[in-house]
Amino acid sequence: MGRVTGSVRTAGCEWLEYDYGPGLVPEEGPGTFTMWRYRSLLPLSEGPVRYPLPIGGTPLLSVPALRGALGTPSLWVKDETRGPTASNKDRATALVIEDGLRRGLDTITTASTGNAAVATAFGAAAAGMRAVIFVSVDCQEDKLALMTQAGAWVFQVPDGYAAAVDLSRAAVEEFGWVDRNTGVNPLTTEAKKTVALEVWEQLGRRMPDVMVAPVGDGPTLVALEKGFAELVACGVADRKPRLVGVQAQACQPLVHAWLGTTPGPDELDAASTVADGIAVLRPAIGDAVLQAVRSGDGAMVAVSDTELMEAVGLLASTAGVGAEPAGAASVAGLRSALRQGLVDPEETTVVLVTGREIKAAGSPTLGRVSVADRLDDVRQALGMVHP
Amino acid sequence: MGRVTGSVRTAGCEWLEYDYGPGLVPEEGPGTFTMWRYRSLLPLSEGPVRYPLPIGGTPLLSVPALRGALGTPSLWVKDETRGPTASNKDRATALVIEDGLRRGLDTITTASTGNAAVATAFGAAAAGMRAVIFVSVDCQEDKLALMTQAGAWVFQVPDGYAAAVDLSRAAVEEFGWVDRNTGVNPLTTEAKKTVALEVWEQLGRRMPDVMVAPVGDGPTLVALEKGFAELVACGVADRKPRLVGVQAQACQPLVHAWLGTTPGPDELDAASTVADGIAVLRPAIGDAVLQAVRSGDGAMVAVSDTELMEAVGLLASTAGVGAEPAGAASVAGLRSALRQGLVDPEETTVVLVTGREIKAAGSPTLGRVSVADRLDDVRQALGMVHP
Ligand SMILES: Cc1ncc(COP(=O)(O)O)c(C=O)c1O
Ligand SMILES: Cc1ncc(COP(=O)(O)O)c(C=O)c1O
Repeated sequence: MGRVTGSVRTAGCEWLEYDYGPGLVPEEGPGTFTMWRYRSLLPLSEGPVRYPLPIGGTPLLSVPALRGALGTPSLWVKDETRGPTASNKDRATALVIEDGLRRGLDTITTASTGNAAVATAFGAAAAGMRAVIFVSVDCQEDKLALMTQAGAWVFQVPDGYAAAVDLSRAAVEEFGWVDRNTGVNPLTTEAKKTVALEVWEQLGRRMPDVMVAPVGDGPTLVALEKGFAELVACGVADRKPRLVGVQAQACQPLVHAWLGTTPGPDELDAASTVADGIAVLRPAIGDAVLQAVRSGDGAMVAVSDTELMEAVGLLASTAGVGAEPAGAASVAGLRSALRQGLVDPEETTVVLVTGREIKAAGSPTLGRVSVADRLDDVRQALGMVHP
Repeated sequence: MGRVTGSVRTAGCEWLEYDYGPGLVPEEGPGTFTMWRYRSLLPLSEGPVRYPLPIGGTPLLSVPALRGALGTPSLWVKDETRGPTASNKDRATALVIEDGLRRGLDTITTASTGNAAVATAFGAAAAGMRAVIFVSVDCQEDKLALMTQAGAWVFQVPDGYAAAVDLSRAAVEEFGWVDRNTGVNPLTTEAKKTVALEVWEQLGRRMPDVMVAPVGDGPTLVALEKGFAELVACGVADRKPRLVGVQAQACQPLVHAWLGTTPGPDELDAASTVADGIAVLRPAIGDAVLQAVRSGDGAMVAVSDTELMEAVGLLASTAGVGAEPAGAASVAGLRSALRQGLVDPEETTVVLVTGREIKAAGSPTLGRVSVADRLDDVRQALGMVHP
């Protein structure tokens, strides 16, 4: 298990490589349908998995009414809202914590637009780790409430999300904490690639023609590409699907980079879209996204908030799937791609629904939320002694 | 499959009976772990299941930190927040809709304190049925928003929940709609009993000593009793667990009925607890609850809102499970039962977490919510022609 043979750096990412072959792909048949089913393609040494929450194995839904509404007879929805905190962030959280437990570490940190932070807070609670979260001051109140409910320490960073990432990474360096920062720790990509492996298995060990995914920092889409490419490398599939990445009109740096155009001032504003999960001004692994999309002959598209809210409604009313706007972005993106002729309606297409809106129960206890600008603020709030 | 041999009425409920024997219990081994695994103990004729969302097969979590916090080394959490709309209501919805699809019906109705309505709205959307929901005017805005997002028709009933039930049932009589009213349609109990069957399998085909569950209208607890009793009837288990039912202090009709005491005026107020899911003044099948609790030598306990919110925090911070207050009531109830000596800390105890708070994405579109007092209001809003 976990036959990692090396790692390379390209497009700003660290990529783990394995000794690819059909033996790394699970046999047909039921078995356990969780993320750990794909252990042979994960950087995990022998021994029992200690992470206590079941992860992965989310449904691939056949969606007749949504197919009808979009005129796409071979459409499928990969429903990541079934995770413990209802987003695909649960996968990365699980693998990173599993690794941290094995290394005997007791604190995990991340910066996040929200969902990764909630996943980290709950995952750490389940695993008995301390979570230290850095968010932008814009972060939704409800998500803050959830994090604190799970006992996480939360720091609001006045200079926004990018500064929150810097601070969290500085904390990793300084304190030796487990690094859950998306796109930084290669384990986050490794975990999220299991979505691609599952989709392939759920389609009867066949590749879709197209897969559509929301893009914030980039790991979700990049990990899909890695998962599909590894199935080809293992010799069990002969081609990868085209990937379509979706951003919000109000914050679409990678769509412009893809088209080679210059974003207008109202197209780089992370705070002005309902899709807070994908509103990332400077994506952590943007180059890798562009490379993944290019390598599969895919595309990048932008969708308006109106289209996002329509997609939320469409998923709910035709497929019975409750998604947050960023989670439904792939449906809005598919409609745009169909209109632009980037996707043929007859193609086998999978839209990835990345997250459900989950909010706190009752009134939040925000006593553990404080403002942080520097590591010293963190030290102080946590009662850490200065070295 | 579905060898129903008859039905009896006791304690105000209709009970389906089967030709019990070990052959009705699935073999050991993986198989599909959804609710349909227990088809032989469900009133379903042959043929493929049409209901499109995967249901049931929720995790039974081993919870070391929660065990530590409560001093209960053999505690387990049955996590029903993993359903498509994140509550145990998804099971009943699935079976009732499956039955309706087989009977060629196109509209489903229910009254609900909220979660059953959300489950019905999303389940109906997925299955291509129309959902018509009746709620009290107190129903949470967010839950209303979710229902309408899924395309349901929602009627707020000024006289409250009991009047909403009456209206929904009148609509069943009048229009021939599928009846999802909890406790009324025996299929709701049949579906929810699969929780007990799963728990027994997940404990290695062993019974817990105690199972704790929140009680609103009653079907959740009553169905647990039926499931456990049927395992005994099938000859694969030799005893049932004790059941502990939990109500909110502010609305605890069944705790007083159990104790033979008279509730104070502040103990029968459905609107004054955070646990809206279990705030039912006149439980639909209260007698059956009392009988189920009595038959297993169990108990009923009441918990305060403070205890409920503490339980929400405890589940989040020690087990990584996000629950709404009614969903966490079993944890609060267990603490009370331990204090009262009703449960021994060493016993194998399962707490049922029935639901997660899920809210709507973005701003709600309430255009389809209207006030209804009489069936004519429904007819009018739906554009139905008077017969
Ligand atoms: C719901 C949702 N969808 C999509 C994304 C984007 O994922 P990534 O940052 O991996 O591109 C996020 C990230 O936070 C998210 O929360
Ligand atoms: C979260 C939650 N828990 C428990 C219950 C109580 O279930 P029952 O009405 O079956 O007693 C409900 C009912 O709405 C609920 O929503």
